[in-house]
Amino acid sequence: MGTYDHEGRPNAMTAAWAGICCSKPPCAYVSLRKATYTYGNFMERKAFTISFPSEAYVKEADYFGIVSGINTDKFSTTKLTPVKSDLVDAPYVKEFPMVFECKVIKTVEIGLHTEFIGEILDVKAHESVLDENKMIDVRRVRPLVWSLPNMSYRNVGKHLGKSFSIGKKLRESKNTDTK
Amino acid sequence: MGTYDHEGRPNAMTAAWAGICCSKPPCAYVSLRKATYTYGNFMERKAFTISFPSEAYVKEADYFGIVSGINTDKFSTTKLTPVKSDLVDAPYVKEFPMVFECKVIKTVEIGLHTEFIGEILDVKAHESVLDENKMIDVRRVRPLVWSLPNMSYRNVGKHLGKSFSIGKKLRESKNTDTK
Repeated sequence: MGTYDHEGRPNAMTAAWAGICCSKPPCAYVSLRKATYTYGNFMERKAFTISFPSEAYVKEADYFGIVSGINTDKFSTTKLTPVKSDLVDAPYVKEFPMVFECKVIKTVEIGLHTEFIGEILDVKAHESVLDENKMIDVRRVRPLVWSLPNMSYRNVGKHLGKSFSIGKKLRESKNTDTK
Repeated sequence: MGTYDHEGRPNAMTAAWAGICCSKPPCAYVSLRKATYTYGNFMERKAFTISFPSEAYVKEADYFGIVSGINTDKFSTTKLTPVKSDLVDAPYVKEFPMVFECKVIKTVEIGLHTEFIGEILDVKAHESVLDENKMIDVRRVRPLVWSLPNMSYRNVGKHLGKSFSIGKKLRESKNTDTK
């Protein structure tokens, strides 16, 4: 997550809990503990970015999650580049291949974590991760998958089947199967 | 997601948008369109399960997402087994190796999707997916990863680094790096 603090300093943190929560308007969420430096930035700026590291940046992604931005310039340590978003008041990581720019539209108090729901106003991607139809290709983004019980960052593996397609056979078999 | 309808019939559906949103209490969310049969079940029973299919069930997982439970018994078609949860009023899929039992604690209206936040009251796993420390091992669960732009179900790939660990080197290098 990329945010600016009250002095306009860019900060990046790795959130354990984030994802998509609505298709229309397209929304992404991030859950944060009040203790994080990013929490205050969210409350103040009502804006954030999600920059997706590729495999090559696993070390930087982990570092963003274990150090607080309160007294560290994480961009300077990692030599990564903060870029001001076009549509929201937050920076993204230039070197990461895919970025969402989000405006906070809802804040949900759950428990230890507060969930911030942001409308995705823009999706940016490096030209190099687009396929021939100009769609983002997961094989080129090479995003990280985090397995908490194993404390392991992993990559995305091989193709198993096409969605909204591979299950159709079961639907067609239905009429003959049921009594 | 596993739910019971108003007649107590078990239903399963594959949700595009789901994940973890709080650590304490442990909470998972699912976002649903009002048009789904499962939506009504959530509103009535305030309970759901998340059963994680392993790679072997990619066809069944896709089928659960493309057919509505309103006039189909998806368990019968797939020959999978609904089991009543111990702690919540919802069924899970016996053959899937990992299950969360959740009680709805918040409902958030976002747009096309409504987000249901559920407290995870129990996590169940097949003995066969536990490692030597009795922790769930992602290499044994073999869960699916969904890539929307590619319409592709994929598996989880190889280990790239240990979390809360691989980034420490960057933290240690900080003092010498900064001016």
